[in-house]
Amino acid sequence: MKIYFATTVLGDRSAVRTGRRVLATLQELGHDVLTEHLFEEGAFESDSRLTPEQIFQRDMDWLTSAEAVIVEASGSSFGIGFETGYALGALETPVCVLYDAVRADSISRMALGLRHPRAEVLGYADADDAVRLVRERFGDV
Amino acid sequence: MKIYFATTVLGDRSAVRTGRRVLATLQELGHDVLTEHLFEEGAFESDSRLTPEQIFQRDMDWLTSAEAVIVEASGSSFGIGFETGYALGALETPVCVLYDAVRADSISRMALGLRHPRAEVLGYADADDAVRLVRERFGDV
Repeated sequence: MKIYFATTVLGDRSAVRTGRRVLATLQELGHDVLTEHLFEEGAFESDSRLTPEQIFQRDMDWLTSAEAVIVEASGSSFGIGFETGYALGALETPVCVLYDAVRADSISRMALGLRHPRAEVLGYADADDAVRLVRERFGDV
Repeated sequence: MKIYFATTVLGDRSAVRTGRRVLATLQELGHDVLTEHLFEEGAFESDSRLTPEQIFQRDMDWLTSAEAVIVEASGSSFGIGFETGYALGALETPVCVLYDAVRADSISRMALGLRHPRAEVLGYADADDAVRLVRERFGDV
């Protein structure tokens, strides 16, 4: 499956290590993760070769071509919020919102409280738990 | 006009002072700003009486009933990104995204680069400039 896996590039990157494990799991399961580069060290710098308009257009092209959207919402950012809202508002893609349940107090209540027929909001206890949740949903069935 | 004016509640609140001047200008021009309370001191605490689900539902009800959306995007957050994406994806509302041009380097490139037929993205130089931009767009015509 083509998957758009969103994480913050400019905001709080503390969940990026968990994000990398989830990314590796998705790839191991055979999925094509369009946003792979966002999880690399230096993602901000490498995106800086593009103008903001180019980044927006590239991300929107990926988002609209994806068959599923996964969002790591622990590090709040305009971008991941925008992609979540646009996918639910304009597309027909299922959206899976993951967040670090330990840090729930500092996570946007618009993410925690999100309810939509096409969205699932899941708190994970740790990286192993995040991997398990993703494996259950995106593994072979 | 019923206006949804979005600002971050949990994230960086440094633009909230400018936000208050914009809010006062909109009210002076006779608009009904549904999100007025977000600009008060203690907005986070007062929202804490609600569950995340209740906050999400209240904000979505306001968003879908608004005739225009204004977003203060300087303090990046999931919520304002979500509202922007959902309004552009699912609604027919015009969206005006404002940001502090002095801080452009630390503002989400998904906000700076946002291009949509119904969206206008405007950097302001200072609070007076933000008020001027809003007055031009939402003043009597």
